Amino acid sequence: MKILVIGASGAVGSAVASALSERHEVLSASRQQGDFRVDITDDDSVRALFDAVGPLDAIVSTTGNLFFGAVATMQPADFNVGLQNKLLGQVRLALLGQHALRDGGSITLTSGIVADEPILQGANATAVNASIEGFVRAAAIELPRGLRINAVSPTLLTESKDVYGPFFPGFESVAAARVALAYVRSIEGAQTGRVYRVWQ
Amino acid sequence: MKILVIGASGAVGSAVASALSERHEVLSASRQQGDFRVDITDDDSVRALFDAVGPLDAIVSTTGNLFFGAVATMQPADFNVGLQNKLLGQVRLALLGQHALRDGGSITLTSGIVADEPILQGANATAVNASIEGFVRAAAIELPRGLRINAVSPTLLTESKDVYGPFFPGFESVAAARVALAYVRSIEGAQTGRVYRVWQ
Repeated sequence: MKILVIGASGAVGSAVASALSERHEVLSASRQQGDFRVDITDDDSVRALFDAVGPLDAIVSTTGNLFFGAVATMQPADFNVGLQNKLLGQVRLALLGQHALRDGGSITLTSGIVADEPILQGANATAVNASIEGFVRAAAIELPRGLRINAVSPTLLTESKDVYGPFFPGFESVAAARVALAYVRSIEGAQTGRVYRVWQ
Repeated sequence: MKILVIGASGAVGSAVASALSERHEVLSASRQQGDFRVDITDDDSVRALFDAVGPLDAIVSTTGNLFFGAVATMQPADFNVGLQNKLLGQVRLALLGQHALRDGGSITLTSGIVADEPILQGANATAVNASIEGFVRAAAIELPRGLRINAVSPTLLTESKDVYGPFFPGFESVAAARVALAYVRSIEGAQTGRVYRVWQ
């Protein structure tokens, strides 16, 4: 398969690219590294990416920013950060990317454990991740030509424990290489509308 | 209690205002009718509303627009309609409104059955409604001073069956007066972080 991984410079994205490279042609894209540059908040940038890579069998997104901060002081513009970046950014990749997929191709987005398990200062993250999972459930019943769409919901990464660990007290972490397996299941399996939770 | 209902001119909002008026002081707000005018997409308009109404015991939102259309032709800007209106609009009411609430006050937002049960052309609705429920789950663990936040998820309204019925094939409808009871439970009960589903 010919697979595009957007966010390939991150911990999850690089693990996914590495796992897929064993058997597939993998193209990487991110804001500042990889085979292609892309700004997921910009329609033209995303369209140019899909024009450049040509027909694909799978699109993987492991990217997007969120706002972290207390609800008591949060402003609407803060909340909109995650809506415009991780949520609409990934939905943009799906909406514009569907037309670059060959019949039977797949889209795999990334949510996160806080969709189900809220943490302090994580209201934007919970809302955004829950929305991504909702989009996947709904888009799956409509996509034509055997196209599929799933999400992977990772918990705290072992590789990110030093930075994000204090926000996830008592949470078990998982290695990025184990999270990557869920993307492989999504791409090479036959399910659609699924959320693969990597924390159970 | 002194309760502000935003979206009070709609079918659900007017039923909620009617049910609450039996025992409470109810103020109504919407874009073009009621005691107060408000544009939920605008910080200044929402701040002016809360300044005008003064301290409250409960805030109810039954408002917000979504985008309906097929995933195959949906553009990112279409998807952003629901993000900016029903999602960020309601979150704005909660974020700015929390400071207008007396100790122990409550916020009740509105999601909808498509959060759990996707329908054709409803990907934006599923994503937005799921996100509202996520926000409620997460904000509930942070709100200070005994403040509470819940959501009500109605199914198709009997009053809206002529207009929206064709989008909900086989769905049972419920009367707005029955949906209103869930808002009363949210306001006068003690739960927080709950989604009251009016379709089971």
